[in-house]
Amino acid sequence: MDFTPSARTQDLAERLRRFMREQVLPAEPDYATALSGSTDHRSWRQPAIMETLKAKAREAGLWNLFLPDAEHGAGLSHTEYAPLAEIMGHSFIAPEVFNCSAPDSGNMEVLHRYGTAAQRERWLQPLLLGEIRSSFGMTEPEVASSDATNMQATAHIDGAQVVLNGRKWWTTGAGHPHCRFVIFMGLSDTQADPHQRHTMVICPLDTAGVKIERMLPVFHHYDEPSGHGELSFTNVRVPLDHIILGPGRGFDIAQGRLGPGRIHHCMRAIGAAERALSLLCQRAQSRVAFGKPLYELGGNPDIVANLRMAIEQARLLTLKTAWTLDTQGTKAALSLISQIKVVVPAVAQQAADAAIQIHGGAGLSDDFPLAQLFAYARVLRLADGPDEVHRAVVAKLEAKAQQRTEYRP
Amino acid sequence: MDFTPSARTQDLAERLRRFMREQVLPAEPDYATALSGSTDHRSWRQPAIMETLKAKAREAGLWNLFLPDAEHGAGLSHTEYAPLAEIMGHSFIAPEVFNCSAPDSGNMEVLHRYGTAAQRERWLQPLLLGEIRSSFGMTEPEVASSDATNMQATAHIDGAQVVLNGRKWWTTGAGHPHCRFVIFMGLSDTQADPHQRHTMVICPLDTAGVKIERMLPVFHHYDEPSGHGELSFTNVRVPLDHIILGPGRGFDIAQGRLGPGRIHHCMRAIGAAERALSLLCQRAQSRVAFGKPLYELGGNPDIVANLRMAIEQARLLTLKTAWTLDTQGTKAALSLISQIKVVVPAVAQQAADAAIQIHGGAGLSDDFPLAQLFAYARVLRLADGPDEVHRAVVAKLEAKAQQRTEYRP
Amino acid sequence: MDFTPSARTQDLAERLRRFMREQVLPAEPDYATALSGSTDHRSWRQPAIMETLKAKAREAGLWNLFLPDAEHGAGLSHTEYAPLAEIMGHSFIAPEVFNCSAPDSGNMEVLHRYGTAAQRERWLQPLLLGEIRSSFGMTEPEVASSDATNMQATAHIDGAQVVLNGRKWWTTGAGHPHCRFVIFMGLSDTQADPHQRHTMVICPLDTAGVKIERMLPVFHHYDEPSGHGELSFTNVRVPLDHIILGPGRGFDIAQGRLGPGRIHHCMRAIGAAERALSLLCQRAQSRVAFGKPLYELGGNPDIVANLRMAIEQARLLTLKTAWTLDTQGTKAALSLISQIKVVVPAVAQQAADAAIQIHGGAGLSDDFPLAQLFAYARVLRLADGPDEVHRAVVAKLEAKAQQRTEYRP
Amino acid sequence: MDFTPSARTQDLAERLRRFMREQVLPAEPDYATALSGSTDHRSWRQPAIMETLKAKAREAGLWNLFLPDAEHGAGLSHTEYAPLAEIMGHSFIAPEVFNCSAPDSGNMEVLHRYGTAAQRERWLQPLLLGEIRSSFGMTEPEVASSDATNMQATAHIDGAQVVLNGRKWWTTGAGHPHCRFVIFMGLSDTQADPHQRHTMVICPLDTAGVKIERMLPVFHHYDEPSGHGELSFTNVRVPLDHIILGPGRGFDIAQGRLGPGRIHHCMRAIGAAERALSLLCQRAQSRVAFGKPLYELGGNPDIVANLRMAIEQARLLTLKTAWTLDTQGTKAALSLISQIKVVVPAVAQQAADAAIQIHGGAGLSDDFPLAQLFAYARVLRLADGPDEVHRAVVAKLEAKAQQRTEYRP
Repeated sequence: MDFTPSARTQDLAERLRRFMREQVLPAEPDYATALSGSTDHRSWRQPAIMETLKAKAREAGLWNLFLPDAEHGAGLSHTEYAPLAEIMGHSFIAPEVFNCSAPDSGNMEVLHRYGTAAQRERWLQPLLLGEIRSSFGMTEPEVASSDATNMQATAHIDGAQVVLNGRKWWTTGAGHPHCRFVIFMGLSDTQADPHQRHTMVICPLDTAGVKIERMLPVFHHYDEPSGHGELSFTNVRVPLDHIILGPGRGFDIAQGRLGPGRIHHCMRAIGAAERALSLLCQRAQSRVAFGKPLYELGGNPDIVANLRMAIEQARLLTLKTAWTLDTQGTKAALSLISQIKVVVPAVAQQAADAAIQIHGGAGLSDDFPLAQLFAYARVLRLADGPDEVHRAVVAKLEAKAQQRTEYRP
Repeated sequence: MDFTPSARTQDLAERLRRFMREQVLPAEPDYATALSGSTDHRSWRQPAIMETLKAKAREAGLWNLFLPDAEHGAGLSHTEYAPLAEIMGHSFIAPEVFNCSAPDSGNMEVLHRYGTAAQRERWLQPLLLGEIRSSFGMTEPEVASSDATNMQATAHIDGAQVVLNGRKWWTTGAGHPHCRFVIFMGLSDTQADPHQRHTMVICPLDTAGVKIERMLPVFHHYDEPSGHGELSFTNVRVPLDHIILGPGRGFDIAQGRLGPGRIHHCMRAIGAAERALSLLCQRAQSRVAFGKPLYELGGNPDIVANLRMAIEQARLLTLKTAWTLDTQGTKAALSLISQIKVVVPAVAQQAADAAIQIHGGAGLSDDFPLAQLFAYARVLRLADGPDEVHRAVVAKLEAKAQQRTEYRP
Repeated sequence: MDFTPSARTQDLAERLRRFMREQVLPAEPDYATALSGSTDHRSWRQPAIMETLKAKAREAGLWNLFLPDAEHGAGLSHTEYAPLAEIMGHSFIAPEVFNCSAPDSGNMEVLHRYGTAAQRERWLQPLLLGEIRSSFGMTEPEVASSDATNMQATAHIDGAQVVLNGRKWWTTGAGHPHCRFVIFMGLSDTQADPHQRHTMVICPLDTAGVKIERMLPVFHHYDEPSGHGELSFTNVRVPLDHIILGPGRGFDIAQGRLGPGRIHHCMRAIGAAERALSLLCQRAQSRVAFGKPLYELGGNPDIVANLRMAIEQARLLTLKTAWTLDTQGTKAALSLISQIKVVVPAVAQQAADAAIQIHGGAGLSDDFPLAQLFAYARVLRLADGPDEVHRAVVAKLEAKAQQRTEYRP
Repeated sequence: MDFTPSARTQDLAERLRRFMREQVLPAEPDYATALSGSTDHRSWRQPAIMETLKAKAREAGLWNLFLPDAEHGAGLSHTEYAPLAEIMGHSFIAPEVFNCSAPDSGNMEVLHRYGTAAQRERWLQPLLLGEIRSSFGMTEPEVASSDATNMQATAHIDGAQVVLNGRKWWTTGAGHPHCRFVIFMGLSDTQADPHQRHTMVICPLDTAGVKIERMLPVFHHYDEPSGHGELSFTNVRVPLDHIILGPGRGFDIAQGRLGPGRIHHCMRAIGAAERALSLLCQRAQSRVAFGKPLYELGGNPDIVANLRMAIEQARLLTLKTAWTLDTQGTKAALSLISQIKVVVPAVAQQAADAAIQIHGGAGLSDDFPLAQLFAYARVLRLADGPDEVHRAVVAKLEAKAQQRTEYRP
């Protein structure tokens, strides 16, 4: 197990850190000011500063770092990308700056791995250039989506077309003015094996029958201008060539997509946890109560120590997961992916909660990014599978591992 | 220790429950629709439905139940009021409906106990009638307000006037269109004993030099139309007779005000926790995953059981606190007041968090009141003293109690 | 809900406290010295000091306080007995001193409620006088006893006799030199409804075929001279009149026995938790590190405060359970009994663990009763049903309660 | 950060595992049977099987693996030794079998690094050969030893001799029949800088004035035949050449000794946690309740998953600590050493507690090693510095780290 960064990733990390310090963090207030504050996504605009930053990042070679493919992306392994994603996780606007934001990065991976040449030219190319954005439609309002086989939306093949019907929500990114398509997942064959019933289809947002019903807030925050959309699909017809990989392959793609996607989320969440701890420490060192800096008061040092220990461990587990995925493949990494999906968001939530507490009321307001960090961590305990499902996966795989070996010192 | 409700409170509870079921809960959507959604409090209006509900509640005799005084209020002890406040805690709009909402209830108690006849006529009377609302200015942005002696705002006596300077925030209710005054607390004598340096002053909001700088969000929510204000006071002059109780008596009033205030908050928070648990159970019983209702799946029954046990205990501790305050006075109740202030908000936060998890994404949205319940609970871990301060109080009083008795079986 | 002690229980509590202070606690070292330290129960003897204390307690009228029956016991309700049991819980030797120790108190209740006149004369009478002791055989080594229907031991009726076969363990009290019988529970009718298959039988320990195989340690401690026995029963024949209540009534008796038994355990465990906290505070106040008493150092005040809050709540919940059992009967108290069975032992374990930590190595040794308090609390999380089973009961009853009411503010 | 095992350590691990499986684990019952069960260490004997196993281990080249020195030990780095120590941690008797047990391993390191040639010949040589054992006297009964500057024992230099006075306890290993000396630490110069006041002295156990007062139990277990001794030193005189490194160098040695010692403990504790989890899984898979294997029942899968996640993280953090010590030295590893000292014992305690719970009463008895595993983990939360001290170290170093960097993504 070797987590040593290569010379190239050390260089990338150094440049990324400088770019964050000099370009991204100072731009956060500008970006926030450029938002409309509206709950109606039709009035949302991409802040100009974002396009400026994107251009600079691309010029600086800090672009598409997430993509393992060396031709279209940076050609980094997950182990190499991990510390870079963590750095991006320090700022909410950073991932888009470097063209590494969800759900686009996942969609790009899907199109890169499973897309036809035509699909790649039409959809992947502009995504790689940062010209358009995209979204992903899996979760549905009417069923417990923790059990993916509950999915009710349909993707019926009707001659040369596939007809989409149903309702999706938490379709992240659907509100973005640059968003052009959603990858829609629906039932296409109710008779097949439960994991071969679903099909993934590229659905342009401007297709007749697609309607963005509303944007959904997370703790009253709309993540403008990306947003989390609730979309209805009513007899939406797209050509057969918009199907990815083939009918009935939805779960195969989802599995391939979600592994790296979860690792990316966790990497960034560690950056978010570090930022929360950093803010906590700054505040605790600068404010005084009962004659002492808060940092030294009562149980506060324990809180700092517990967070440091939790973050260190969460990072190492994420690195091990990335390394296992790199060296032994998805199947060997299944338990670890579920493990970090439980561990890391919980640590980030704990860090944000503790930092809020040290900040007092300020921590709940918009004066600090803590409420937003908290919401991000809280969402992650549900997105891409709730904690409960991942713990069940870990326990099931542990049972097998324990049975394999009579004695395992 | 007797928590048995009297015949009168049983009757009140029954009527309150019916009023909640028939009037308040059905009005929640109307109320929400009537809000502007703006972050600028100047565009906030009192929803008409609220005034309708207030009129009905007053007519039904469900009015000012919080006030122990029998002439102006309901004449209930804290033990009697506790279950009623819990009922109100089920809906965010309920406390105002029954004229029992913070910070007005606390301010009414202050004016009732410490106000001059003139102060009571001018300010208390319209508050008791629900004609105006009020706010309370204690916390400051520049210092750690967990240590109240850090307070920097000043209330200098200058001849026949008292001159207020400084900045306050988390002045809850200041954004309400009916809000007419803030009770301002400031340093009046820097040479006195640390707990006799501060003075409380009634400051009408339209006095020259008072400026509402902005409203503060809690997890991006503004609590329209009450709001949490940041206010600046610049050479604000009010007559000496606006001082409450007398110069240097600020801490005395605060102590008297905060005890019952904290109990009220905790009573309502238990109602909030029950509502969260109730929503959790409904959702868990109605949604199915992996072939079972969520309610029966994996560790979910444990989550329900743990919440039930935590809520039961928190309620009993709050009742004991109310009973101790009623029968033995503030001093005997000090440790218990701090205990519930730590215990109850944590339980409510835990209940809201668990209910969110069971609801999936829906729990984070506005479709359910869970995000708001969570924010309310989270705020309470800071408002009226952060957990840390209250734990320190409990430990200090425990040390004394343990030293008093050689052996205490 | 009224927990106010009557004049009589206040008097009893006062006398009990004095007896504890003057007689029981000073006798603890003597008692410990009189033990053999052997793992072989055949060398165990009743310490003389115990019989002396029992005689004094009986003379002082502090005897059989647990028994609700006024003729043979003290005639106290559970609510009245609760604070008395808590006082006894401060010392491991106290319950026997007052003839209120498990499993005798439970067995006396069983015989009092369900025994025939002959059974009561032969077995109950000497138990009430403290002349003999008894034990209870339910748990079995070969199956998961958390599910009582797993029970494999048999009690076949064969003419005028019932024939017992099987193996029981954790038969508490079986090692005591005064122990004369075990209440044995076994399958008598494999065709009946699962809860009517089992029969309880009084089995004298000197019956042919009964063998005490060994005593079981808890964290290497044997609880001499009571002990936890593993017993084998091989074709043990006792007359039919040794059956309690009737064939197939085992579960009915168990339900009736376990409710009060669990409450007694929890009451005593609160006393144990208080003693642990008391020892913690004494040590923390008397030892100094880094220039401060441990009591004031770092997060230690938080630990004290958290324990105080947890113990207060656990006690109130136990009182509510006792009160509910008294006023509304066993069925209404089912959830609460399971709740305290989860809550109280956990609090006691937490208190003992924290007290050990403050004592350093001393806390793990025999110089303080903390290791024993810890073991007692730890056992209670398993005895009379493991936490897991009780949480499941609470969740199941909560589901029903939630479904009964559409809205429950 | 590279944790990849070298070919040599892979080979060692493989051989060690086989030796554990074929020799050590099967010998555990024999070893247990050979113990006297007495609390008096004078009747303790080394079980013959231990000497047999030691001879085999030495012959197999699985000997002194802990010692980084290639001449006298295995020449392994801490990173290389970590997985091997974890394997040994699966059995309580294993560390001695491989001559890697505390406190001997720590004492050997001290003598190897700081001892004179004469000291090494007389004391180190027989230790390396496994011919004698040793102990370490630091903790004292009369003061809070968490603050090492509280130490009261004295080591006064008087001409050609050093005179030892005082009382030490938790002197692990002092009861072993092969134990020949204790490394005694005492005050030699009360005027010097607080960390230069103490001197370490090799004190043969048979020196006049040394008295083993008693052995101390941990949860009633005496760890026969090593034991934890309480020793008194009364005017004990040893020649000056028994001082290690020089007068006033006690803390320097302690620092050097405790870093690797703590890592070794943590490595072994991870093995202990794995064994507890393994036992938990075996039991949960083999026992059935309510129609299901315990493994699949209710929240049990969550318990397994949580333990797996906690152990994985604890192991990775320990490996990082070892690697940091190897590559950057003690000072760079200070925070990490304290981190694992808090994290790992807590995980091991949690694993043992959960495994006990799944085993029911059996888990508390001697039929499984769980009670002993629990006690070992519990002791570790106190030994070599209590959790509280280590958290304070982590927080203090974190404060410095945070202040060093303005921005640290």
